[in-house]
Amino acid sequence: MLTAVLSASKPGFIGVPLDVAAAVVQDATNSEPLTVAQTRPDVLSACERALRDHVGRDSCATLLVGPRVHRRGLESVVQEIAELPGVLVASQSASKAILDERHPASLGTYLGRTTAQPATRDAVDQAEMLIMIGTITSDFTTGFFSHKYVPEEAVELALDHARIAHAHYPGVMLYDALDVLKRVITDAQMSAVEGVAASSSVPDEAPVAADDEPLTHQLFWPEIQHWIAPQTTVIAEAGTSSYGALDLQLPADSDLLGQPVWSSIGYTLPAVLGARLAQPQRRPVLFIGDGSAQLTVQELGTIFKRVPNSVTFLIENRGYTVERYIQSPEAIYQDVTEWDWPSIPAVLGAPHVHTPRVGTLGELRKVLAETTQNRDQSYFITVDLPERDAPRLLKVLVEGIAASNSQD
Amino acid sequence: MLTAVLSASKPGFIGVPLDVAAAVVQDATNSEPLTVAQTRPDVLSACERALRDHVGRDSCATLLVGPRVHRRGLESVVQEIAELPGVLVASQSASKAILDERHPASLGTYLGRTTAQPATRDAVDQAEMLIMIGTITSDFTTGFFSHKYVPEEAVELALDHARIAHAHYPGVMLYDALDVLKRVITDAQMSAVEGVAASSSVPDEAPVAADDEPLTHQLFWPEIQHWIAPQTTVIAEAGTSSYGALDLQLPADSDLLGQPVWSSIGYTLPAVLGARLAQPQRRPVLFIGDGSAQLTVQELGTIFKRVPNSVTFLIENRGYTVERYIQSPEAIYQDVTEWDWPSIPAVLGAPHVHTPRVGTLGELRKVLAETTQNRDQSYFITVDLPERDAPRLLKVLVEGIAASNSQD
Repeated sequence: MLTAVLSASKPGFIGVPLDVAAAVVQDATNSEPLTVAQTRPDVLSACERALRDHVGRDSCATLLVGPRVHRRGLESVVQEIAELPGVLVASQSASKAILDERHPASLGTYLGRTTAQPATRDAVDQAEMLIMIGTITSDFTTGFFSHKYVPEEAVELALDHARIAHAHYPGVMLYDALDVLKRVITDAQMSAVEGVAASSSVPDEAPVAADDEPLTHQLFWPEIQHWIAPQTTVIAEAGTSSYGALDLQLPADSDLLGQPVWSSIGYTLPAVLGARLAQPQRRPVLFIGDGSAQLTVQELGTIFKRVPNSVTFLIENRGYTVERYIQSPEAIYQDVTEWDWPSIPAVLGAPHVHTPRVGTLGELRKVLAETTQNRDQSYFITVDLPERDAPRLLKVLVEGIAASNSQD
Repeated sequence: MLTAVLSASKPGFIGVPLDVAAAVVQDATNSEPLTVAQTRPDVLSACERALRDHVGRDSCATLLVGPRVHRRGLESVVQEIAELPGVLVASQSASKAILDERHPASLGTYLGRTTAQPATRDAVDQAEMLIMIGTITSDFTTGFFSHKYVPEEAVELALDHARIAHAHYPGVMLYDALDVLKRVITDAQMSAVEGVAASSSVPDEAPVAADDEPLTHQLFWPEIQHWIAPQTTVIAEAGTSSYGALDLQLPADSDLLGQPVWSSIGYTLPAVLGARLAQPQRRPVLFIGDGSAQLTVQELGTIFKRVPNSVTFLIENRGYTVERYIQSPEAIYQDVTEWDWPSIPAVLGAPHVHTPRVGTLGELRKVLAETTQNRDQSYFITVDLPERDAPRLLKVLVEGIAASNSQD
């Protein structure tokens, strides 16, 4: 069981009957140490020789890095490779900011046709040599399969196998493959190249608009970009929240958590607790819509008890806006019951949480400044946004879905 | 798919891709009518002959009726059989009140050693001829397997087969078997017998206690017994709520809903909506503890919007009292975050709901009288009960669990 957990890097569950739970166990250490699958040295050598041949031909290596790197905890190896000359790094949406997005080698986040910066998209789609590392190929990570790179011609380093174009190397574990890659690129002594300077489509400067301007997504996200501090775990719920957050350029020592593969709504709200427990030095910042929050809202009681300094942006747009964009905007099942959101924290046992409601740019700016001053306090900010308004990325994605449906 | 749903009497789910959902369908009726599995006439005849032999020997038939009768909608056939002389009817906990509990043939609810009335328990355990109809044999329906009747010697009419002691009749469907049973018992012309007059262990009269007496389970449930009106769907959450409600004698045209087999907590709160939609002429009355309610509380928003006249008793005993009774009463995981329950309905969009809090017998009596006067209004009543207090049935059940564990 423990070996399976280690090998797959996935959670495991053990059911223990009531009477066994109370049984006495010996505290002797395990006489047979746990072992996980190892890469066979001869296969690894063959893989390294082939990779040297492959890399020898090119002057630059473009890495497309996916979420399975997080699963193995190999972020630092990727970051070391990014320091080598000739290396550029794009990330999939589920591993956004795996390399600091202001790093010179950073290409930002790749999302096929819906990528924020054309330069990022072209750097991946037209890469001389593309190396996919721990990637997941899904509708969302490829901009609804609008990617133009050819996976079959790329190098792919997966959790438990490697592939160099058409040559497969079964059983080559990701950590071993990354060591090989680092050695091969170091030896190749490529020339320096430059990434995409500003990987964010959200202007770094706050927009010029009057304080009494009603909030829209177009006004909201630049304020967030301007406000967001280093050492933040950004947690963005599937829907307008994740589409807005994906276009942010994250500051140093920050991460984006979400549900980019299955889009299971409600996931991110309790994730605030897990994020804080895992990295107590970071402030968790949650963006979530009212529809999603209604699925797991009760966990706020525990969160406010255990996490002293979270910031939640409850985007109140009265229903499932992302679904309205995809189909049947007026359907009754897109509406949710209207709640009195600012009263929720106190009712769930947390009267100490600040619960401002913001509807204009000026109100938002004032509250953001407050949260920065009070970094050790919790905020639950209800943000009034129009029912039929969305961030840039959702709008272009919906065009992609429409195009994809019309091809069927 | 539809045939499978009909045959198993279980819900079915069909996944429809987005583009197919919008496709045009022909509105012609199904040319091949749906058919479900039929009992083979020769098997049914053999079963009837054997049942006549079996019944011929006895002067009285004791029926133990389980929840699968509800699944087939065969309650009325059971009620017709109960009118025949010589028939007594006990129900399992999951089909409580399938026969009006004041009916002369009623034995009330059977729960093995933990049955409320010894007369009920003996009538089943020592039945001359026991006929199990749509029963489920689980820890809870048998009082932790403390039943003394011998299933192998009984008649069993199950969803899709019948058994007369050791003779099995595969494929005999429950509705056919019940028709046969009715005919056989009618022809047997047994003598009249009497059920167990008061199947409830909760006194029908309110207890003599002062109005300022703090509430306990011992004081609470007799007040409920006294108050509960005909045409009520009682919905009782796993925990102290279900153990209290199981000991009630339900009035005419009433039902008890719950999760007696899997004890999945949180189930009953949204069940209020389903109960009301299924039987709008009945008032739904929910009993639920604070621990369980925290799992599905958000559905109150929809319930208060769609159900105009529910009564909820939110038993605030600050945690998982049933678990405290079973093991580790002081463990931190038995506590739940304290919420401001009376404020919940307004925050979830229902300021019109009455939300009294009751801590004494007098307060409870006053509120109960109010709910009777205002049968068309919704009440969400927070009931203060001690952390370490439980209804009779939970106490005897816990003794049963302790005994069962010590045998292992």
